[in-house]
Amino acid sequence: MTMADRMLATIPSQPLLESAALAACIEACRDCVTACSFCADACLGEDMVADLRGCITLDLGCADVCAATATVLARQTNANPALTSAILKACAEACRLCAEECEGHAEMHEHCRVCAEACRRCEEACRQLIA
Amino acid sequence: MTMADRMLATIPSQPLLESAALAACIEACRDCVTACSFCADACLGEDMVADLRGCITLDLGCADVCAATATVLARQTNANPALTSAILKACAEACRLCAEECEGHAEMHEHCRVCAEACRRCEEACRQLIA
Amino acid sequence: MTMADRMLATIPSQPLLESAALAACIEACRDCVTACSFCADACLGEDMVADLRGCITLDLGCADVCAATATVLARQTNANPALTSAILKACAEACRLCAEECEGHAEMHEHCRVCAEACRRCEEACRQLIA
Amino acid sequence: MTMADRMLATIPSQPLLESAALAACIEACRDCVTACSFCADACLGEDMVADLRGCITLDLGCADVCAATATVLARQTNANPALTSAILKACAEACRLCAEECEGHAEMHEHCRVCAEACRRCEEACRQLIA
Repeated sequence: MTMADRMLATIPSQPLLESAALAACIEACRDCVTACSFCADACLGEDMVADLRGCITLDLGCADVCAATATVLARQTNANPALTSAILKACAEACRLCAEECEGHAEMHEHCRVCAEACRRCEEACRQLIA
Repeated sequence: MTMADRMLATIPSQPLLESAALAACIEACRDCVTACSFCADACLGEDMVADLRGCITLDLGCADVCAATATVLARQTNANPALTSAILKACAEACRLCAEECEGHAEMHEHCRVCAEACRRCEEACRQLIA
Repeated sequence: MTMADRMLATIPSQPLLESAALAACIEACRDCVTACSFCADACLGEDMVADLRGCITLDLGCADVCAATATVLARQTNANPALTSAILKACAEACRLCAEECEGHAEMHEHCRVCAEACRRCEEACRQLIA
Repeated sequence: MTMADRMLATIPSQPLLESAALAACIEACRDCVTACSFCADACLGEDMVADLRGCITLDLGCADVCAATATVLARQTNANPALTSAILKACAEACRLCAEECEGHAEMHEHCRVCAEACRRCEEACRQLIA
């Protein structure tokens, strides 16, 4: 049982979205922040850092968007459906872009492989909430 | 001359977007983070806090989205146009929603009046970059 | 195996700190962000919100500090020991303060009980890295 | 008159700290986030990026800590003096470290020169509030 599951069971409001999918998306966002933050740093440490600039920039941007999304999703007291939808769409797109970039060198860099996985899971979790 | 203007003049890359509009949007996002953070806190301190829950939730969400947007916009080395567009759209929507909410009680609460102004300026700055 | 464990195994640099403790601290910070974000929101949704202002303010502050700490800890390429130490100390203190506050009404609010637990675990994880 | 000044004039609580110094510190933190975010990105775009890894890591860390500090300082409803003090100390240290690093190549990189200035101003503003 994740922290998001545990906390969602305690809130006084009725969540805007189905609880299990909401908790799963928050955890997917948090894992994606961790993966992207590490991947940006790992790319920076590679000998071929100059070739990884685009990946670093996308990793950092994806981490920022996922962190904002997780925090917005945790606020279910008078949650605003339009704000939720807007940030979920941006997050799904950020994750899709970062996954595509990382998949392009997943065979060369294990950090990009694991990061791409985390991005794809988060993209999928966002799309499930949007639907 | 703002900090964003000063820094944009020093970067080795060619910015993805027109420099003056880009710097203006970053500063508008930063001001909006400040305004929304204060407004959420001020609403929390009001006697009628129970009636301001929706405003607090939108203020906090808008601050999160604007902070992410400002940071993404500052990354011009291999900046990704699709990510930029996605976060700008989410930010414009967050600012629009928060402005509408704050405008609804701007006559009663000065913090909501100033915050609504900051949100409208940021919404407009995002829309200019999107266009 | 957590995302932080998985990513730490892939980085090209030698981490500044012992890997298992570092990964555990990053995950404890991320869980604390989730717990504190939910707890702030849940307190806001309670009928007695006016009595929970101090708890909401500490929850939000603790979430901010833990999020910054997790991200700083994920950067092991040329990691700076003095910065690491400074943010770990602030994080341990933020978690201690938030835990004490939440423990004060843990019997009344389940969200405060779970949040206090997450804060204590994060405080302990930070202290282990400082030592 | 900055946004922090304008908003501080509207809050229902009595600020924990002297208003002008508090507003100045929030603005210095926000400017430092902008400067450090741009400097990290500009360093990433330089031909000699491999030599600037330590600067990039410190820039990103300093930006994270300053952003958290600005947001904590904006919460004056039941503000916690111990949390305020803890984050101000971490922020002053992050700014000092980043300033020293950037000053080391300020003559070669204009972005490092402007960033070092922003860091020193923020360090000083934090120290004034601590005192």
